[in-house]
Amino acid sequence: MSNVMNKAPMGWNSWDCYGAAVDEATVRKNAKFMADNLKACGWEYVVVDIQWAGPDAKDHEYIPFQKLAMDEYGRLIPAVNRFPSSVNGAGFKPLADYVHSLGLKFGIHIMRGIPRQAAAAHLPILGSSQTADQVAQASNVCEWNPDMYGLNPKKEGSRKYYESIFSLYASWGVDFIKLDDICREMPRLKDELVLISDCLRNCGREMVFSISPGPAVLDFAETYKQVANMWRITDDFWDKWELLYAMFERAEKWSVHTGAGNWPDADMLPIGPILQDYDKNSRTKFTEDEQYTMLTLWSIFRSPLMIGGEMTGFDEFTMKLITNERILKMHSDSRHSHQVWRKSIDGIEHVLWTSVSQEGGQYFAVFNTGESDSEISIDFADLEMPDGKKEVCELWSGETCVAEGSISIKLNKHGAKAFLAF
Amino acid sequence: MSNVMNKAPMGWNSWDCYGAAVDEATVRKNAKFMADNLKACGWEYVVVDIQWAGPDAKDHEYIPFQKLAMDEYGRLIPAVNRFPSSVNGAGFKPLADYVHSLGLKFGIHIMRGIPRQAAAAHLPILGSSQTADQVAQASNVCEWNPDMYGLNPKKEGSRKYYESIFSLYASWGVDFIKLDDICREMPRLKDELVLISDCLRNCGREMVFSISPGPAVLDFAETYKQVANMWRITDDFWDKWELLYAMFERAEKWSVHTGAGNWPDADMLPIGPILQDYDKNSRTKFTEDEQYTMLTLWSIFRSPLMIGGEMTGFDEFTMKLITNERILKMHSDSRHSHQVWRKSIDGIEHVLWTSVSQEGGQYFAVFNTGESDSEISIDFADLEMPDGKKEVCELWSGETCVAEGSISIKLNKHGAKAFLAF
Amino acid sequence: MSNVMNKAPMGWNSWDCYGAAVDEATVRKNAKFMADNLKACGWEYVVVDIQWAGPDAKDHEYIPFQKLAMDEYGRLIPAVNRFPSSVNGAGFKPLADYVHSLGLKFGIHIMRGIPRQAAAAHLPILGSSQTADQVAQASNVCEWNPDMYGLNPKKEGSRKYYESIFSLYASWGVDFIKLDDICREMPRLKDELVLISDCLRNCGREMVFSISPGPAVLDFAETYKQVANMWRITDDFWDKWELLYAMFERAEKWSVHTGAGNWPDADMLPIGPILQDYDKNSRTKFTEDEQYTMLTLWSIFRSPLMIGGEMTGFDEFTMKLITNERILKMHSDSRHSHQVWRKSIDGIEHVLWTSVSQEGGQYFAVFNTGESDSEISIDFADLEMPDGKKEVCELWSGETCVAEGSISIKLNKHGAKAFLAF
Amino acid sequence: MSNVMNKAPMGWNSWDCYGAAVDEATVRKNAKFMADNLKACGWEYVVVDIQWAGPDAKDHEYIPFQKLAMDEYGRLIPAVNRFPSSVNGAGFKPLADYVHSLGLKFGIHIMRGIPRQAAAAHLPILGSSQTADQVAQASNVCEWNPDMYGLNPKKEGSRKYYESIFSLYASWGVDFIKLDDICREMPRLKDELVLISDCLRNCGREMVFSISPGPAVLDFAETYKQVANMWRITDDFWDKWELLYAMFERAEKWSVHTGAGNWPDADMLPIGPILQDYDKNSRTKFTEDEQYTMLTLWSIFRSPLMIGGEMTGFDEFTMKLITNERILKMHSDSRHSHQVWRKSIDGIEHVLWTSVSQEGGQYFAVFNTGESDSEISIDFADLEMPDGKKEVCELWSGETCVAEGSISIKLNKHGAKAFLAF
Repeated sequence: MSNVMNKAPMGWNSWDCYGAAVDEATVRKNAKFMADNLKACGWEYVVVDIQWAGPDAKDHEYIPFQKLAMDEYGRLIPAVNRFPSSVNGAGFKPLADYVHSLGLKFGIHIMRGIPRQAAAAHLPILGSSQTADQVAQASNVCEWNPDMYGLNPKKEGSRKYYESIFSLYASWGVDFIKLDDICREMPRLKDELVLISDCLRNCGREMVFSISPGPAVLDFAETYKQVANMWRITDDFWDKWELLYAMFERAEKWSVHTGAGNWPDADMLPIGPILQDYDKNSRTKFTEDEQYTMLTLWSIFRSPLMIGGEMTGFDEFTMKLITNERILKMHSDSRHSHQVWRKSIDGIEHVLWTSVSQEGGQYFAVFNTGESDSEISIDFADLEMPDGKKEVCELWSGETCVAEGSISIKLNKHGAKAFLAF
Repeated sequence: MSNVMNKAPMGWNSWDCYGAAVDEATVRKNAKFMADNLKACGWEYVVVDIQWAGPDAKDHEYIPFQKLAMDEYGRLIPAVNRFPSSVNGAGFKPLADYVHSLGLKFGIHIMRGIPRQAAAAHLPILGSSQTADQVAQASNVCEWNPDMYGLNPKKEGSRKYYESIFSLYASWGVDFIKLDDICREMPRLKDELVLISDCLRNCGREMVFSISPGPAVLDFAETYKQVANMWRITDDFWDKWELLYAMFERAEKWSVHTGAGNWPDADMLPIGPILQDYDKNSRTKFTEDEQYTMLTLWSIFRSPLMIGGEMTGFDEFTMKLITNERILKMHSDSRHSHQVWRKSIDGIEHVLWTSVSQEGGQYFAVFNTGESDSEISIDFADLEMPDGKKEVCELWSGETCVAEGSISIKLNKHGAKAFLAF
Repeated sequence: MSNVMNKAPMGWNSWDCYGAAVDEATVRKNAKFMADNLKACGWEYVVVDIQWAGPDAKDHEYIPFQKLAMDEYGRLIPAVNRFPSSVNGAGFKPLADYVHSLGLKFGIHIMRGIPRQAAAAHLPILGSSQTADQVAQASNVCEWNPDMYGLNPKKEGSRKYYESIFSLYASWGVDFIKLDDICREMPRLKDELVLISDCLRNCGREMVFSISPGPAVLDFAETYKQVANMWRITDDFWDKWELLYAMFERAEKWSVHTGAGNWPDADMLPIGPILQDYDKNSRTKFTEDEQYTMLTLWSIFRSPLMIGGEMTGFDEFTMKLITNERILKMHSDSRHSHQVWRKSIDGIEHVLWTSVSQEGGQYFAVFNTGESDSEISIDFADLEMPDGKKEVCELWSGETCVAEGSISIKLNKHGAKAFLAF
Repeated sequence: MSNVMNKAPMGWNSWDCYGAAVDEATVRKNAKFMADNLKACGWEYVVVDIQWAGPDAKDHEYIPFQKLAMDEYGRLIPAVNRFPSSVNGAGFKPLADYVHSLGLKFGIHIMRGIPRQAAAAHLPILGSSQTADQVAQASNVCEWNPDMYGLNPKKEGSRKYYESIFSLYASWGVDFIKLDDICREMPRLKDELVLISDCLRNCGREMVFSISPGPAVLDFAETYKQVANMWRITDDFWDKWELLYAMFERAEKWSVHTGAGNWPDADMLPIGPILQDYDKNSRTKFTEDEQYTMLTLWSIFRSPLMIGGEMTGFDEFTMKLITNERILKMHSDSRHSHQVWRKSIDGIEHVLWTSVSQEGGQYFAVFNTGESDSEISIDFADLEMPDGKKEVCELWSGETCVAEGSISIKLNKHGAKAFLAF
């Protein structure tokens, strides 16, 4: 990637809360909230997730065979009934302009491929003599979404099609592309991924390139680094402890590939009100301790941080969770992050992570992944810190102490603490 | 299967010679030839293979996204430009009537599922309140053919759709259905296969039910027996020695599942002029010995016998090959067929098969699958024939001799001989 | 195999009842019983199973590192304390002579390889300049028995060693060798198996060559046919319904490899008193119906029949079970045995087998493998019998009837019936 | 592990040069050389590798079934003909004393298990009522070495046996145990490994615990950390580029488990004269560039450094290679080592590693793993170094420069350079 970001992206994505049915009012409302309340802490991306071209969408289910909004070149455009400002072919430009006016950045989700409708209608491809039916591959379909056909990366018309969509998105002012149905499909779809990345990189506008769904394939880490900014290391993440628990192993394996503009992505944060399309009162099922654990792990591992809940409904706890300056500093300031160990202490499993501060000192985070509260001692030798007295600050609370050789830590079941020692 | 056939079907299929582009004149010509020259030997089925609803077809390639001929209920009908007698909604009835008038039987190929066009157009299903888009499964597509979506077997509309097509085919007078994209997909598509079989069995007309493509899954042998009459045990078979050689192992494994209306199917016989869409002069690449081997193995194994070449172009050798009464008698008369051994004799691999004649006596066939001619002795003890003198007839030549204990046999490389001893 | 047997071996083996601890008195007693009571029905082999060289043996457990009886060339000889007649280097000759005097045949079990003791002591090999430590392979050991090292089949001394043991056994008058730790180890130990078979075939005395343990590897069926007379298709078989149930699938898969001196072996029959080393009152846990099922399947499948129980303790049921002339006739007279189908009828699974009688007529056997009694109809078309009236004899009972088209059969849960129709 | 070492062990091991046949004079000679020439740089362990109890040893081949030297409790002792000072039951104590007198540390290789000779002889176990034959597992043998039987970790006598050997080694003054035939056998031998580690940790003397052979199983990383100090991540490493090339991937995967007394081990350094038992003139086949690559990778990855060659025959290049203070400083001073990327630049594959200096500044090493020389630019952003001018020292040459943003580097094919920037 040419555009090296020195910290992982932070923002909001519509999926966890609105599925395939987010609309313009919701996006504007959340963008406004972010600008007013979160921008100062570093949160900046506002991303519209999947099937925004579908007029019939009403929840997390994909509607098969609905008539997607599409231009004469087979490029999907926003459904006007859901995104009114896109009327008259304006696309997402008015919405992107609004987000930019707030000092934020704008992103959209896309599926790889070309709409099945375009192939059935034999539509022309902008700038190519080939038509949609000639580049679409009839059996190259997504397992879980009904909209597109994959493209034959060897055909000239395929490149032209991908160039045509990124050109359109650049004209709208898009800053962030979340490309779906490709990340975990290595090596099967590697050629198509390289083609898409190449077209995106040359579209004339700098965009963060995020690929989904996970789990990404570890053996292709160097490929991901070369073509993308962030890649999903997990299938869809939701508010279940089993999924959060499983993230420790994923983060351990991917940690050496984090940094310098490359961000293995642990997926959105399902916090606050989520799944509103199912139930207007639905809220995250994570306990407060589990949410501390999640934010701590995502931050010391340096995952992108993308909020999944409806932000205007956040309570005080949730707001504090995502605006803790010390934790967010660890997220941006950490270097060389990695797990130190994972072991049972007095029958309770704990995990220890560490990273180096750019500004001197060493971060470490301790997780109780067992089923009881615990009080343990962390040996500084395990962290390979130099001998001598250390000033240690617990980052969630801001409390500080002086320690030598080791530090005693109390942890709730499923809870975490994070520290900076120097 | 209710309709137990006491011999495996024999006939002609258009694929090997005409691919996706067979037309009415060709079918009529071959049917007439069969009636005049082969019917007396037992050949009776005339089968129109794949994509007969496609007006653009011109060779073995499937044309993706062409506009298939279809009725208002999403049922494919013959493309009128290729099958002129189907004009005005007559479907295949006129052609079937013609075939019947010759004393023969008529068959067609179908793909599982519903046309993608029907789903995109939200067409109604005959006799159901559900529409095509509601029963089609967007990601359930064939790997190699672009026409259909698989159906959700749990939906009422899916059953209605399959009932509607078999009802149509019954009204045309179809005697044989070759259903494709399902046979080797066990257990993934077992429910859909059972549903289709059930609809076919209850359509009001008796039809042979043949399923493709292979290789069929051996662990599902009892399933195949219960739902179908014949099932392909190999992927497409062509005129290459490697494929013929591989059939020995397939036949060995499937032999115990042959008989009583159940016919593991070694695929069409690529003999005479084949692949005419590529080259009007193209002819089978099998040597004469290989063709003897093929017919001998198919016959003692009791495979269906479906001719793949353009019959009107058959030379004298080919005609003798498929009209040898003794070999065809072995095909219909064999019981309890199985391989006896497969081993190297003087460095040349040979295979020995046997079966029991319904009328007394024992068949056996010897194959030289090595790379040199050979002269070997077959020990009657290996065949578990009772002691004593045997009268032995070689079936291809009709020559007879008396042997006791063993018989000496000369074989060409890749050649075969077949015998009846009693 | 040069010596083609026209029926599968029948006899008695000491394992099921006495494990590693059988003694001479027991063998003599059972041989006498067989001669007096079973010989007339075709039972003839008396086989001494494993670790007969071990003086410490007391039950089914192998005693590791005990001092096995061995001659100066590292050849195991009977432990004199257990086989007194072997004193003064007589080996098994006196016992074999006794068995022969009864008109029966004598067999022994051996492990592949050379005793570990011989390698540790660097013993000479008869007729070779190599010593035991030079041909033994230190890491080539049996997973479950502690006595031997496998031999390097490429070394001249290995062949000499195997020749030396078969020469010794021939001098004793052994008629049957059960070689262990090799059958299921294909392809790893194929070279050693071929070497052993070759040495056995050339030892100057004809012996049945039986290999264990199972499950034999189906892909090596032709190898087994060429090197052995019988091979175990299952791991140790005991008196549990799950094991008997599993034998149907094994028998189905191996049926085409049965006959003409080749006998896939379903293992000993655990009937009557068994496991006497654990409990003097222990008897088979199979129900009477399960025993009918076992004998019926073994017989129509043409497995070797080796009694596993202490014969002198057989009750009347057991004696009738193994002396039914019609069933034993089916065992020796069947040809072309195979399963016809296996399916659920009214929710109860049934299995149908058939074979051809050498003398005309067709056998079939019906098994109820479900969990309720049943009454079903067998369609003669499934058996591919010619049309017309059939005289049908049920073989266990001897009852006969005349049937046409089908026959109605009552079966107990886990029970079986066998028929001859002509 | 209780005894946390703050740097990975450095020393010499007899295997690469002398195989199973090293003798006392050789060990003394190399120890003296190390004390005189290398101790000052941090080299300190002198390790006697495999089968030192075998009197017949003469090269790298293991002699099966030779009579190993053993005490009355089945504990192996040095073969007196090879280690004269061990006469009269002195064991390795005199040799260890000599090594200690030089200011160095002494290590030995052992196989897991108990000598087969001890089991065959039913020897007593010190402090236990069980005998060797009762704890040895007859089928639990090493695939490649003929000496031992594995022990049943559940038996009391097994623990006693392991306690007895470590007690003996402690009495000799052993500082380092290289335990073989266990590391890659996870999870099969995990219980035996935990038992051995436990016995070693409680023997009363601190010893480095090194386990072999590799490749270690990545999923058991936390187990290795808990039971051992170093574990082999590769099968035997020799002087072949393919093996060195493969180490990059192994090092990448294991890097997060390095440090704080835990040392994934890339195996001995085959430098200088090696394989002397085959050929007295044999020398490493690695080019000088490959040796730079090896030392650079081992050092920044923090592998143990164990010299494999005959040190008294080292030439000037080899001496400089292993006495470069800056490289050895990187080895001991590095923290948080990891690969940054691995990619093709102008068609030539390169690898970039980094680590953090304890004393400030950042190490990085660049490898040309392609087949041509190259000149490339390393972007400091990839290393996530803070902006601004850096003073950069190339560690092999000691040359320094000032760079900002990036640095241009020339590399030979298969060569490497290492840097410290601050």
